[in-house]
Amino acid sequence: MSAKPFRLAVKAVVFDGAKRCLLLRRSAANKGFVGCWEWPGGKVDDGEDFATATLRETAEEAGLQIELTGPAGVTSFEMPAASIVLLCMEARLVSGEVRLSHEHDAAEWVPLAELGRFNLPTAVGDFMLAYAARKAAPA
Amino acid sequence: MSAKPFRLAVKAVVFDGAKRCLLLRRSAANKGFVGCWEWPGGKVDDGEDFATATLRETAEEAGLQIELTGPAGVTSFEMPAASIVLLCMEARLVSGEVRLSHEHDAAEWVPLAELGRFNLPTAVGDFMLAYAARKAAPA
Repeated sequence: MSAKPFRLAVKAVVFDGAKRCLLLRRSAANKGFVGCWEWPGGKVDDGEDFATATLRETAEEAGLQIELTGPAGVTSFEMPAASIVLLCMEARLVSGEVRLSHEHDAAEWVPLAELGRFNLPTAVGDFMLAYAARKAAPA
Repeated sequence: MSAKPFRLAVKAVVFDGAKRCLLLRRSAANKGFVGCWEWPGGKVDDGEDFATATLRETAEEAGLQIELTGPAGVTSFEMPAASIVLLCMEARLVSGEVRLSHEHDAAEWVPLAELGRFNLPTAVGDFMLAYAARKAAPA
């Protein structure tokens, strides 16, 4: 048997000055998980640096300029043609006002402790909640 | 202030048929952490896919062909010119016998529960031990 290829995707956990992270709601323009809330991000293009991809996707999907600060974690999920490795990076908001693309129809700045009240994509929801719990735990 | 750039590096947690993972001991040819034990891996080249880089580094450093099975975790550490994001991938041994490069002078197949008796690099040792503990915990 030949395994599916692994593809790298990135997400930005963008924090504002009040320690809230940006969630975007997937619009009906998407094939799946319509109405689910997610961090901005997407596939790393062939030959593209992962950090560049994270900044690019955040600008495209949210209209924001950010600065990466460190890794939030990694998870994976299956797509028909590939296994997706989802590398999530923490970032801080540098400039911009939220401006959505056709892929999303709502945005909210959310304290991590409140992530649980949002409809999260099944493939990565548990991972997002585990991250929030880890960040909330005393070091 | 302008932050240092982020660079992606990869490590392979290669398991053999007995659920032992491969550790390599850093030789005196290295600038730092001489004598410390690590998983095979290294920097992702410009334009290189992260999965390709993981297979390449494992072949170069250990002479082994592997198949990636999923993410093990991600951590980061500081270098003078960059912040390194270290993406660790689990893998299974497909073929080959361990053959070291000049970068290492010893190899051992180690059950995760025994990682703690090895001298691990300070920058990533805690991360490696936390991974081992997580894998040992009942799901």
